[in-house]
Amino acid sequence: MSRIGIIGAGSIGSAFALLFADAGYRVRVYDPDLSAAARSQETISNRASQLAQYGLLRSDHERISRLIDYVPTVAEAVNEALLVQESGPEDVVQKRQIFADLTAATSPHTILASSSSSIPTSRFVPETSAERALIAHPGNPPYLLRIIEIVGNPATSEEVLSRAESIYAKADLTPVRIRQEIEGFVFNRLQGAVLREAYALVSEGTVDPDGLDTLVRDGLGLRWAVLGPFATSDLNVRGGIRAHAKRMGDAYQRMASGRGPSEAWTEAMIDEVEAARRREVPLSSWDDAVADRDLELMKLLNSRQPNLRKEDR
Amino acid sequence: MSRIGIIGAGSIGSAFALLFADAGYRVRVYDPDLSAAARSQETISNRASQLAQYGLLRSDHERISRLIDYVPTVAEAVNEALLVQESGPEDVVQKRQIFADLTAATSPHTILASSSSSIPTSRFVPETSAERALIAHPGNPPYLLRIIEIVGNPATSEEVLSRAESIYAKADLTPVRIRQEIEGFVFNRLQGAVLREAYALVSEGTVDPDGLDTLVRDGLGLRWAVLGPFATSDLNVRGGIRAHAKRMGDAYQRMASGRGPSEAWTEAMIDEVEAARRREVPLSSWDDAVADRDLELMKLLNSRQPNLRKEDR
Repeated sequence: MSRIGIIGAGSIGSAFALLFADAGYRVRVYDPDLSAAARSQETISNRASQLAQYGLLRSDHERISRLIDYVPTVAEAVNEALLVQESGPEDVVQKRQIFADLTAATSPHTILASSSSSIPTSRFVPETSAERALIAHPGNPPYLLRIIEIVGNPATSEEVLSRAESIYAKADLTPVRIRQEIEGFVFNRLQGAVLREAYALVSEGTVDPDGLDTLVRDGLGLRWAVLGPFATSDLNVRGGIRAHAKRMGDAYQRMASGRGPSEAWTEAMIDEVEAARRREVPLSSWDDAVADRDLELMKLLNSRQPNLRKEDR
Repeated sequence: MSRIGIIGAGSIGSAFALLFADAGYRVRVYDPDLSAAARSQETISNRASQLAQYGLLRSDHERISRLIDYVPTVAEAVNEALLVQESGPEDVVQKRQIFADLTAATSPHTILASSSSSIPTSRFVPETSAERALIAHPGNPPYLLRIIEIVGNPATSEEVLSRAESIYAKADLTPVRIRQEIEGFVFNRLQGAVLREAYALVSEGTVDPDGLDTLVRDGLGLRWAVLGPFATSDLNVRGGIRAHAKRMGDAYQRMASGRGPSEAWTEAMIDEVEAARRREVPLSSWDDAVADRDLELMKLLNSRQPNLRKEDR
């Protein structure tokens, strides 16, 4: 069997359908909202042609469409699936119901994965299927940020985790193992650390929101798109990361100490950033701004790996 | 006069010489080490030809070389300069001496800028020239991360700050105004916030250093190379950054509260990251890894702004 089941045909579920079909898997998608299928098909069709333009598709649009079926029941979606990717609402009560249904409808060999960004599987999987349940949290959008956080619960078997990782790797997502069910996992904890310092800097009047975003986009973020933070520090000081820690460690500790551990995001600081963002992007242009972001990401990916995708074919 | 003086011909001083000459300024460089000039010329020559290959040079190599002179005294370097870019050692005692010399050797119209990443001008400029002194802190490498932090001291005049900003903008560096002499300014405070959470995550066993770097390089960092953190959050939740703060603020606050405010970087956590980095890049290959980073950055810049540089010519 080389079939994947997707529960939920929203933007994340549709993205997974596209990624798995592009890797050659047969995909069955279930959504309780019957009108979701048409929207999902259109999304996948648009995305697939954009990705193809930038050399980021291994297969082609027609083949992808042929591999994806929308089905009217959970049972049909998950029957004989290697892996089920649950991409429903971020709500623990709904996930409990969905995972009870999935446990009943699947064989013990089917991996049960959830796209949740914040709720660990311990909080919603039945004991009987905990061994084959895990979080597989993608970036947004998943077909452009080609990483996925793999988080087991204490009962998840190593065999299931590594089998899941090899399935995601086939769909061109680099799996990163997260070894504790920590809130925010790693991706969102790092994002939270930046936002916390960013809000504090704006709030105290050190920099305005646009200036801060510019420093990241054309500076820190550009470099982090080439090297992660440890690799960046390693190459910033001759002698590597140990020399970096010796030179910079005390200063970074002082900077961290200056921030209280638990300041809430205040209304005033959100107001200031919101006003700056609306000057840049009125809410009426929000969808266009998202589309522009994705085009820029496609250009970067295209430039970064000029030959990789073709070799993959 | 359209002349720039550079004090210090190391990697940062040489990078500024290249940037200013590419913008058409006459540049005079002084370094107390007489052998520094030859190395600096070679560095600039190599960098200029790489940048030209990727469409990231406005001028050409020969014209740049003709515009840069290496001179044997501070007085010759700064005579009739619009702006002096001090790029000497990160040492407050040496900077005090250099800025005393610069104050004596320049007219009151010359802007005195320091590349310091950590020592604010209040700590080393004489009172008599404080009004025309500021920090202009670049990214590394400065000709690829095209941003610069502009930090006045309390006496720096607004006229000087905006004149400096327009000079850097001509050299294709986007100036970002930092309104307080805060340790680490903004660039390094954001970097410190990420490193602090990154070290904590590795240290507690949540993720290994390579996995964390992968999540940033192919995920968060790639997206931050397109949009800064506020713009990213603004587009991650329909309704914009206010809706994002409402949905995510409490979770981010909980994540921050879980970290003590002032943990030092321990030897054990540095050892672990160092070992992972050395498996990736032995110190004997460090210079090659830096060169590879810069080539990747050039590719990204080239893809991001395919037509901009040509229009600038």
